[in-house]
Amino acid sequence: MEHAGELFASAGPTGRSLPAGSFTLLNPCQPSKIVALWNNFQALAAKLGKAAPAHPLFLLKPASCVIGPGEAIRRPRAYAGKIAFEGELGIVIGRKCKDVTVAEAADYIFGYTCVNDVTAAEVLNENPDFAQWCRSKGYDTFGCIGPAIATEFNWAAAKVSTRLDGVQRQSYPLADMIIPPDQLVSLISHDMTLLPGDVIAVGTSLGVGSMKDDSTVEVQIEGIGVLTNKLHGTAG
Amino acid sequence: MEHAGELFASAGPTGRSLPAGSFTLLNPCQPSKIVALWNNFQALAAKLGKAAPAHPLFLLKPASCVIGPGEAIRRPRAYAGKIAFEGELGIVIGRKCKDVTVAEAADYIFGYTCVNDVTAAEVLNENPDFAQWCRSKGYDTFGCIGPAIATEFNWAAAKVSTRLDGVQRQSYPLADMIIPPDQLVSLISHDMTLLPGDVIAVGTSLGVGSMKDDSTVEVQIEGIGVLTNKLHGTAG
Repeated sequence: MEHAGELFASAGPTGRSLPAGSFTLLNPCQPSKIVALWNNFQALAAKLGKAAPAHPLFLLKPASCVIGPGEAIRRPRAYAGKIAFEGELGIVIGRKCKDVTVAEAADYIFGYTCVNDVTAAEVLNENPDFAQWCRSKGYDTFGCIGPAIATEFNWAAAKVSTRLDGVQRQSYPLADMIIPPDQLVSLISHDMTLLPGDVIAVGTSLGVGSMKDDSTVEVQIEGIGVLTNKLHGTAG
Repeated sequence: MEHAGELFASAGPTGRSLPAGSFTLLNPCQPSKIVALWNNFQALAAKLGKAAPAHPLFLLKPASCVIGPGEAIRRPRAYAGKIAFEGELGIVIGRKCKDVTVAEAADYIFGYTCVNDVTAAEVLNENPDFAQWCRSKGYDTFGCIGPAIATEFNWAAAKVSTRLDGVQRQSYPLADMIIPPDQLVSLISHDMTLLPGDVIAVGTSLGVGSMKDDSTVEVQIEGIGVLTNKLHGTAG
């Protein structure tokens, strides 16, 4: 169903339905930033031997890295190494949000989307003195979000499935999350103002791996949809 | 002299001069992101015993942290620890910039500004598994820029002076920079698209320290001006 208006303010249905194939889906919102969590699932923390964090551990992915469903992930021109996929849940902020309590947080969550948090794996630890989180995860096209924002979504009952060229590589329950969405929004809103359209990628769990050029990755969350992106080689 | 129009496209003088005291300076541009360098001055690298990096090492400070000259730095509500100042040169991008060469880089630099790269020092290493660069440097009001953008500026001949409550704490030559501006812009433009108004904070050198509540920090670069900001206690 077609809607018109401002997504986070006054959008409403136009009454018009568009036939499948007659339109192209874009990224469902334009974040000013993606706040991307590290070490936020029990199973992965246990595998890596890391303690559960008391506060969200995050890096920032810039607005310039965002693409939508069906758009190509592009290999950076100067990088020939491994490119990793990470299927994740994304929280989409609906209202300007600063210093909110856990009880208030739900009012600031517009909905949920799928995220592929793409990473140039060999850049991350290239320098022994400084882990390059923002650089390795900030390349243009490395922030895949979509295909939709589900405004009624029970995250605690859902799981994330990630397929690489049709083969399932991740399947983990969101209930295994260490710091859940309402707490994430509250805690991160004490670190920085969150704006409408901003996305919190809640972190990934077991099964991340790397994509070859021309690989297709699908991140599926029941109740949201399937986010599909293909890795293209260097644009040249 | 008053100017009108789009800063990075069609601005020109109106012919009108405004008397001092009749206007308030805002941040001179609105970055979509600040790319903030770590370990980019020889003297500080030597003191810390770190090797000079081959590629810029950076974190991202979000747009939401930016303030201008005279605006208050605000202590985060949930943080009672040390807050550090870092006087730095900022490169202001003038045109959308991706995969540019070192020779092309100058065409994409609009000018230079002063930066106070404010840091919640005790947050940075609070977690032993993950250095919290984006969090400790991303709080609202922690990205001070201004007071102006100098479009004709010879960085190699200038120095950065930082005063804490009138006492000089930093005074270092920009010629000590490890990766200079044209190389920074070229290399970082291969990591992510830079947009008009984006700021690259080129890193700091010796003499950083912490501010008490109600301390005033001035970052001065001859040829640009003096950026003054005061740390206010928690807004409550």
